[in-house]
Amino acid sequence: MQTVFWTLPINEQFMNQITYKELKSVLNKILIKTGFDVNDAELCATIFSNSTADGYHSHGVNRFAEFIKSITDGYVQIDVSPEKLLSLGSFERWDGKLGPGPLNAHFSMNRAIALAKEYGMGCIAMQNSSHWMRGGAYGWQAAEAGCIGICFTNTEPNMPSWGAKTANTGNNPLIVAVPNDTGHIVLDMSLSQFSYGKMWQLTMEEKELPFPGGYNADGVLTTVPKDIVDTRRVLPTGYWKGSGLSIMLDLIVTLLSSGRSTAKIGEMEAEYGLSQVFICFDVDQLNHADRHKSLVDEIINHVTAAQPVDPGSQIEYPGSRTLKRRAKHMKEGIPINNEIWDHLLTMV
Amino acid sequence: MQTVFWTLPINEQFMNQITYKELKSVLNKILIKTGFDVNDAELCATIFSNSTADGYHSHGVNRFAEFIKSITDGYVQIDVSPEKLLSLGSFERWDGKLGPGPLNAHFSMNRAIALAKEYGMGCIAMQNSSHWMRGGAYGWQAAEAGCIGICFTNTEPNMPSWGAKTANTGNNPLIVAVPNDTGHIVLDMSLSQFSYGKMWQLTMEEKELPFPGGYNADGVLTTVPKDIVDTRRVLPTGYWKGSGLSIMLDLIVTLLSSGRSTAKIGEMEAEYGLSQVFICFDVDQLNHADRHKSLVDEIINHVTAAQPVDPGSQIEYPGSRTLKRRAKHMKEGIPINNEIWDHLLTMV
Repeated sequence: MQTVFWTLPINEQFMNQITYKELKSVLNKILIKTGFDVNDAELCATIFSNSTADGYHSHGVNRFAEFIKSITDGYVQIDVSPEKLLSLGSFERWDGKLGPGPLNAHFSMNRAIALAKEYGMGCIAMQNSSHWMRGGAYGWQAAEAGCIGICFTNTEPNMPSWGAKTANTGNNPLIVAVPNDTGHIVLDMSLSQFSYGKMWQLTMEEKELPFPGGYNADGVLTTVPKDIVDTRRVLPTGYWKGSGLSIMLDLIVTLLSSGRSTAKIGEMEAEYGLSQVFICFDVDQLNHADRHKSLVDEIINHVTAAQPVDPGSQIEYPGSRTLKRRAKHMKEGIPINNEIWDHLLTMV
Repeated sequence: MQTVFWTLPINEQFMNQITYKELKSVLNKILIKTGFDVNDAELCATIFSNSTADGYHSHGVNRFAEFIKSITDGYVQIDVSPEKLLSLGSFERWDGKLGPGPLNAHFSMNRAIALAKEYGMGCIAMQNSSHWMRGGAYGWQAAEAGCIGICFTNTEPNMPSWGAKTANTGNNPLIVAVPNDTGHIVLDMSLSQFSYGKMWQLTMEEKELPFPGGYNADGVLTTVPKDIVDTRRVLPTGYWKGSGLSIMLDLIVTLLSSGRSTAKIGEMEAEYGLSQVFICFDVDQLNHADRHKSLVDEIINHVTAAQPVDPGSQIEYPGSRTLKRRAKHMKEGIPINNEIWDHLLTMV
């Protein structure tokens, strides 16, 4: 049952308003009960709570029960530590030992930050990791540490490449983050035009997609989310372009980590053992702080100063909406679906 | 007149069939006449000829006269050499001194390859470069040298970000290349759904785009290329996703090179002084040759083994069509528009 909880819609009705502190405390208790040690539980609860506060419920609180199930089912291991397999100065390869995705990804980005502080840039490739939940979490982590951060992961085969009818590649999320003193700039995008979570949500709200998101059973592009969920023929971001980029990201994570490709992940009974890459650049070694600030301001001001399509509206940039949601939720509490919250309380 | 030659359609009518050798010889002579030294002329002629043989006429032979004009107009300098500004081990920043884009990009990728051979990975950021013509050229260059290559550039403001009506970001091409003994795998994509070159070409052929490519004067998404060329409201690849990635790539090239952003380039009277980044990983240090081959085969075989949308068709992957075009053109000659070829002959 809990494996589909993350697909529940964020609906203003039937919502509890939970404080960040309360959410994190409940998640922490469940993690401790599951067997996490105190430090790992604290970090993991923080990552899930931050993602939820930022509005990414589908990869935060709504997916938490499924995350715990991946541990109790034995796919994700909690008594392991990453092991270094290869070191080439600013590049390192690690074995994630099938540990929890959020902890492995946080570890990897921290290591990439450390290498960047030492060498100017750093790159970590990790094999045998698990689903990292919200990739953006590790972009914010890099930016908080004063690093430009880039990370990407492969997934199970969940998207047909351009010209294919069956899923032969993944939607391989790509995250890019840049530190900014008035709020970091963070892009967190998967390479399908819409996520399954979004399509489930709109299906239950009886709404259509704003643009075609995939093919229906007749092979016609459609905006009806249920028809796409049924065929599983989701459209890559930008048709052939997202398709090509998805294949390239799978090649890079697999070759750098010497780990599992999307093809290999698809042969397993669940989505685990993923390959991931984390790249950092230390901004302090690239530009003086004033120069960094003026270059970032120059770009963001140019973007936001354009004429908006909707008169009076504000032009957004990557991360700007997240910052607003985070501020609102930290002040007013986080809306969380009743059913999900009640279920979590039974797990404490 | 020659500044719009690159927009001419590749039409099987009115075509000369020129051998690679003949093309390169003519371009070489024009470059020498323009003042290039022997080595630079040879390299530059090779890059333009290779791009044309690969079928990228719009960034090859069709743009050559415009490239020469950027030199005679004084925007691009030919008596300069790149200068190193910053060295952090596997990362270096260089000043391109407004030299020819193809030579600067080739130099930068060569330097990234050398750093990768020394350190496992290498990254070059270059400020003050010029238009590199076909970005894919430097992806093939990295792959030929046994490196995974990633490079991207900013451009003048030529695309509205998501929600904007006026061009406030660039279509910032992104190239990713992976070495493969049966033909390298190379993605070369800009972040607008269609290029201006493609839209001009289809306009002249009185054809429509296969998918909406931008907005018409009424603010409605359209497949009529002329209407989009008129408004200049091209659609980012994947709507908000390509828009976000475009802003992030501009931030990275600008911060790493400490060079001009798209905003600054837009303040100048022509598109020059661009910022570019080149990243390489040496595959020999990542995996044994057999392991590299088996991982690449595993991924490409999985992609191409999927059920095709059109029964009997072959599923393509990044670079697979280029390889076929190259083989055909090297064997049968390269179709080149009469008007363009005749004009080049007057420049020798």
